[in-house]
Amino acid sequence: MKESDLVSRILLALRARPSDRSGLLVGPGDDAAVLPATPHADWVVSCDWFLENVHFLPGVHPPDSVGFKALARAASDLGAMGATPRFYFLSLAMPSPRTGKWLDRMLAGMARAARRFHLELAGGDTTRRSSVAIHITVIGHSLRGRTISRRGARSGDKLFVSGTLGAAQLGLEFVRRKLSRRLLAKNVMQAHLYPEPPLELGCWLAKHRLASAMIDLSDGLSTDLHRLCRASGAGARIDRSSIPSAAIPAALSRTGLKSERVALHGGDDYQLLFAVPRRLTARIPARFKGRPLTCIGEITRVKSVLLVDKEGHASPLRPAGWDPFRKKK
Amino acid sequence: MKESDLVSRILLALRARPSDRSGLLVGPGDDAAVLPATPHADWVVSCDWFLENVHFLPGVHPPDSVGFKALARAASDLGAMGATPRFYFLSLAMPSPRTGKWLDRMLAGMARAARRFHLELAGGDTTRRSSVAIHITVIGHSLRGRTISRRGARSGDKLFVSGTLGAAQLGLEFVRRKLSRRLLAKNVMQAHLYPEPPLELGCWLAKHRLASAMIDLSDGLSTDLHRLCRASGAGARIDRSSIPSAAIPAALSRTGLKSERVALHGGDDYQLLFAVPRRLTARIPARFKGRPLTCIGEITRVKSVLLVDKEGHASPLRPAGWDPFRKKK
Repeated sequence: MKESDLVSRILLALRARPSDRSGLLVGPGDDAAVLPATPHADWVVSCDWFLENVHFLPGVHPPDSVGFKALARAASDLGAMGATPRFYFLSLAMPSPRTGKWLDRMLAGMARAARRFHLELAGGDTTRRSSVAIHITVIGHSLRGRTISRRGARSGDKLFVSGTLGAAQLGLEFVRRKLSRRLLAKNVMQAHLYPEPPLELGCWLAKHRLASAMIDLSDGLSTDLHRLCRASGAGARIDRSSIPSAAIPAALSRTGLKSERVALHGGDDYQLLFAVPRRLTARIPARFKGRPLTCIGEITRVKSVLLVDKEGHASPLRPAGWDPFRKKK
Repeated sequence: MKESDLVSRILLALRARPSDRSGLLVGPGDDAAVLPATPHADWVVSCDWFLENVHFLPGVHPPDSVGFKALARAASDLGAMGATPRFYFLSLAMPSPRTGKWLDRMLAGMARAARRFHLELAGGDTTRRSSVAIHITVIGHSLRGRTISRRGARSGDKLFVSGTLGAAQLGLEFVRRKLSRRLLAKNVMQAHLYPEPPLELGCWLAKHRLASAMIDLSDGLSTDLHRLCRASGAGARIDRSSIPSAAIPAALSRTGLKSERVALHGGDDYQLLFAVPRRLTARIPARFKGRPLTCIGEITRVKSVLLVDKEGHASPLRPAGWDPFRKKK
């Protein structure tokens, strides 16, 4: 059972047919849902789990990082639609012993993320539970009809990513190995604990209608690229040498971790992957607010996703990013 | 630690000041949040947990009841604002072994509730977890400025409840005692497993501006009445003999359960408690769509909540309904 199979079963059972909902502009199966609001704006809504022992580890991840990241990754789903996040709903289930200092620190991290991303608390629900479960609903707005779904990529469109890929995964590898703080590579730890999704980039692309399809990289490039291609009914060719991979920090140099593999399959980067029609690619800058934007390949009519090396040899790129329902190795 | 203390700490830490949010018409601390949409309508949003071992028991509660009730109780929060629920987001965390028949049946129950309450799936999130966690976000609409919060009750307003109270709690007592199906009292089991919140009543009261404050009875009359009074900065006098209590079924007659206690403190009824200005009480019918509406007392300037018997003796009514953070007896 893969997560995508589970989602298909849920949609079938609840009779939800994407893009055929009365009043629903974008339905289940994208980064967020789009509901009509005023004649000039749409509301964009997304839901996101952040669970102890699934998305974070108690005693390993600092509580303020748990709060910051829970909100940052939920906001990222709206950025991936080209929407501006505005309100959030915090639903919190937790055991009584964690309602002391741990909660204070977690909330301090969340408050910091809320200020950073200009989000306001609008509501939520609290209850007791044996381990901590956080659920965030984020609501934002976009100009009417300007949201960017996963489904609009067309053959010939160029594929871009923001930032460098794999940094968050390298941060997780540090944390997993309990490496001493002295050795920590600041940028990868920052990427893992306090991710900063490029929300303004998403809005800018939407405002200027520059992207035909977009998704945020939450589960790894290989997995999220497959999602974008499947939704668009297309395939992709990725230029292997162009992938902006994060360098392996010295402290991890003997682990056997390969920079390319980590960039392809590592999760939690919250960078944007977007397709740009060929005639518009000249309008994509090399950097946006300090973050590099890199063309890594293009959309193809053939539905396979291929990795192409410098010599022109193509090999299939399988979705091997994070899937909560895949058996652990 | 009570749930209300925890909520206060969360609101303080996240700097959310109810009724003072830019763009937020109703903020945290009510049944739902109200966001501005068109010049003629508002969006109303609520979040609701439904957790294994907290809100339902595996092996005890049929999976289709879990799905039905998870959605019904979330919709009830919108009804309590006088809004019409329209879209829902299902976030589901579950262990792999439960993704088979259990999931199919749970989803069948949820699909039935969605048809019953005219709700459409708009999105959600799925992940793996050691026990089942369901989180529902419901979004609906109301006429601009017509939502009914908890905070508008004024001294002299009459207090009404819909339906009979305590039936759902009696259903839970049946289930807890594993009483044989032969003995089941159908109406209390129905109330416990497949609650039907009076959504149309809430909308009707809002449309005609008949209620000054409203809340749904999810945690028991005593607890929810205190919430309404606290939000309104008022108190209440409840006429003990007027409370529409569900009768104790024969099979539970030897348990010592008292009809009045169950009606006052039993949770999960999802009936409406609302305050009506004195000059409008004549417009409240004795029944609405077959459901009795009963005047049970009135709002007072004095902030205490009192239970008054036929002889005029008043005793304080303490909030003794369901609180997930209160120590179990």
